[in-house]
Amino acid sequence: MSSLKTSVVEMVKSIKRGEISSEELVKSYIKEIKKKEKDVEAWEFFDEELAIEQAKKLDLLHQSGNHGDLHGVPVGIKDIFDTVDMPTADGTEIHKENPCLNDCTVVSKLKQAGAVIMGKTVTCELAYYSPGKTKNPHDLSRTPGGSSSGSAAAVASHMVPLAVGSQTNGSIIRPASYCGVVGYKPTRGLISRHLVLQVSRKLDQVGVFSNSVEDAALISEQIIGHDKQDPDTSLNPKPKLLLASQQKPPMEPVFAYIKLPFMNLLEDDSKEGFDEIKDEIKNKLNGKVDEIELPDGFKNITEWHKIIMESDMAASFSKEYKAFKNKLSKKIIEAIERGMKYTSVEYNDALSKIDAANAYFKQFFYDYDAIITPSATGEAPKGLEFTGNPIFCTIWTYCGMPAISLPLLQGKNGLPVGVQLVSSHFDDERLFRNASWLMSKSNK
Amino acid sequence: MSSLKTSVVEMVKSIKRGEISSEELVKSYIKEIKKKEKDVEAWEFFDEELAIEQAKKLDLLHQSGNHGDLHGVPVGIKDIFDTVDMPTADGTEIHKENPCLNDCTVVSKLKQAGAVIMGKTVTCELAYYSPGKTKNPHDLSRTPGGSSSGSAAAVASHMVPLAVGSQTNGSIIRPASYCGVVGYKPTRGLISRHLVLQVSRKLDQVGVFSNSVEDAALISEQIIGHDKQDPDTSLNPKPKLLLASQQKPPMEPVFAYIKLPFMNLLEDDSKEGFDEIKDEIKNKLNGKVDEIELPDGFKNITEWHKIIMESDMAASFSKEYKAFKNKLSKKIIEAIERGMKYTSVEYNDALSKIDAANAYFKQFFYDYDAIITPSATGEAPKGLEFTGNPIFCTIWTYCGMPAISLPLLQGKNGLPVGVQLVSSHFDDERLFRNASWLMSKSNK
Repeated sequence: MSSLKTSVVEMVKSIKRGEISSEELVKSYIKEIKKKEKDVEAWEFFDEELAIEQAKKLDLLHQSGNHGDLHGVPVGIKDIFDTVDMPTADGTEIHKENPCLNDCTVVSKLKQAGAVIMGKTVTCELAYYSPGKTKNPHDLSRTPGGSSSGSAAAVASHMVPLAVGSQTNGSIIRPASYCGVVGYKPTRGLISRHLVLQVSRKLDQVGVFSNSVEDAALISEQIIGHDKQDPDTSLNPKPKLLLASQQKPPMEPVFAYIKLPFMNLLEDDSKEGFDEIKDEIKNKLNGKVDEIELPDGFKNITEWHKIIMESDMAASFSKEYKAFKNKLSKKIIEAIERGMKYTSVEYNDALSKIDAANAYFKQFFYDYDAIITPSATGEAPKGLEFTGNPIFCTIWTYCGMPAISLPLLQGKNGLPVGVQLVSSHFDDERLFRNASWLMSKSNK
Repeated sequence: MSSLKTSVVEMVKSIKRGEISSEELVKSYIKEIKKKEKDVEAWEFFDEELAIEQAKKLDLLHQSGNHGDLHGVPVGIKDIFDTVDMPTADGTEIHKENPCLNDCTVVSKLKQAGAVIMGKTVTCELAYYSPGKTKNPHDLSRTPGGSSSGSAAAVASHMVPLAVGSQTNGSIIRPASYCGVVGYKPTRGLISRHLVLQVSRKLDQVGVFSNSVEDAALISEQIIGHDKQDPDTSLNPKPKLLLASQQKPPMEPVFAYIKLPFMNLLEDDSKEGFDEIKDEIKNKLNGKVDEIELPDGFKNITEWHKIIMESDMAASFSKEYKAFKNKLSKKIIEAIERGMKYTSVEYNDALSKIDAANAYFKQFFYDYDAIITPSATGEAPKGLEFTGNPIFCTIWTYCGMPAISLPLLQGKNGLPVGVQLVSSHFDDERLFRNASWLMSKSNK
């Protein structure tokens, strides 16, 4: 059904003009879910009636002239975000019976914008590595990536045009890359984590999935904003992402291609694809790509990230570990147990380097418009047990810099491979301008 | 000289009216320093000429009609605050040669308010427990308390009418109590720690010493304020402390006297003095004092505080420990070594309880205007080696609640003993109203 490939920006306009009702739109997605869900298994909770009921209410609101910016559009929610009328299991049977007393800030803001909360998408166990049931829609024998597996797969298979996820290491950018959709992780502090499962207060960041850069901008604008209930959210003015995604950069951008110490992990065909993109930017599009090496200290970031993440997991999941160890996966038990062993000095040391790294990048972005870098090591790996290596996301998550994965490449098996752009702290607008530039140029 | 006992609020008015010049005022304090410093030894750095030079410049500014709110008044600065034209040794020979490149935010704000930076006051080694040379002006055989030893002693002996200090456990309230002056530690986040020696980012709080509640309000108003360079400073509006210190509470206050688990440490004569104050409040002043017990969990706060403080010290002083261990005291080496052993989980657990404790107190202060509690265990201890027990400050420092020590009691040796009032987070104005009420009532 072609309407499902329409951009959300256009869908909202159509609903506003009365050309299509939210009920019709939601039902067309439900039809898609019925067709594909038995294969893809992206949903942890989906209740057809509940979705249609919301759409009907929004159609009534439409008649009385009320329109949110996502009016009538269905959104999938990673199953670690609390929802008052749907269960939240956090990918573990330990939490299955936990009552949700309220909507998290993100869901509450989406409802205010008129979104239909379509259901809860599959997450890895406690948003870490042990996968749920979801398969990659492009090849059911492969992982969709994790931990926002269901959100990426649901958007990729057009069961929903938008979805919300979270990233503590590479849980948005990596599945977006594997599933061939746009994944956007804003600057740390732009989106509230109130009533979202806490893995690591220092590292957890909320983000979104969509089929276009514009749509990612549209949904993000609805959920960005300071929230007293997440004291780490920023008081900075909200970025105008939709506008930025529709603007041209003031001049052809200058990208930095960073020779990361783990570049050898990039698969050969992805490396070739990347070289082609770089050539295209330089030779056809009049942009620039400089090859850059980071100072030596940056080699330790993956280790510092690990210390913070596992330390915080040991604190966040201490109850689960103490009372329900037998219901936890081996992988997460090992991470928690490593986390229990770091000293407070190692932890504070790892944290203190975040500011130093950001000071470096602040200077860096006087010279470059964006970093261009792989989103993942290549195509989605075979099998469902391993959700893939997040290493191409770790530095940016650690620093809290904004990142977007664009579905621009194909691997040797014809599966999607993402190109990641990264921008400076709170320069999410510039990230969107450059992402749109690259997408539109590469489509020509 | 009677002018030295005048309140700073009055001094500033006299200077503004031209009744006294800053040079005259500063010289009268210098005279006092020359008389008393050989006994009290409150100053780490004092340069007569540098002080007079500042005063002369301020007198010129006076003639051209420029007046800061502390115009021409000398202030002592604890020797852990960077000053561009005076050395900063942090109480250790290791730092003696460290260059100061700039004034810290506090000193810069004091200069903007027209204060004369009189000199640097003695601090304990790295603002911890090992004392400097300073003696208690009321009895030279006794400790002035620590770590803001020189600031408290200088104000108590009228060598300067105002001084700045800092508190990570009990380093303002305790020396204020021992020296018989007013000591005020604002709500955490009100005063910037930019270019101040960092002991613990989580716990370090700047505060002041003065001879009256009004004067503490006046100097604090000059240095309170958000500072981008200390990201933990608050964006809340600045409290109007001077106004509050001159206002009556809307009705007679209701105090909470908390039966702390370590109340047995309070010396008998201080306990009697405290009972008299409570009686006076209830029977003569129409106030109320309820005796309250804290929930059981609060018993662990001193341990949580210790975990955070020592962990942070191990991180803050790792260079000193690695390169100059032979120049550190046994006490601080032991603290650093304990700090090196805590796990990140213990550390995060200790931190996470701060919010829970504050949630309790938020509710608590719907019923009470202030907590009334001892500032210390009694009179200043004999000898100079032990700076006294900070335990009556620990809970409030841990929570970041505002506290003020009022010189209201006397011990059996005729030495001063402070009464501490504590108020709710960011309710520093109410603290000052109640402090002024208690001071003026008790003076009658």
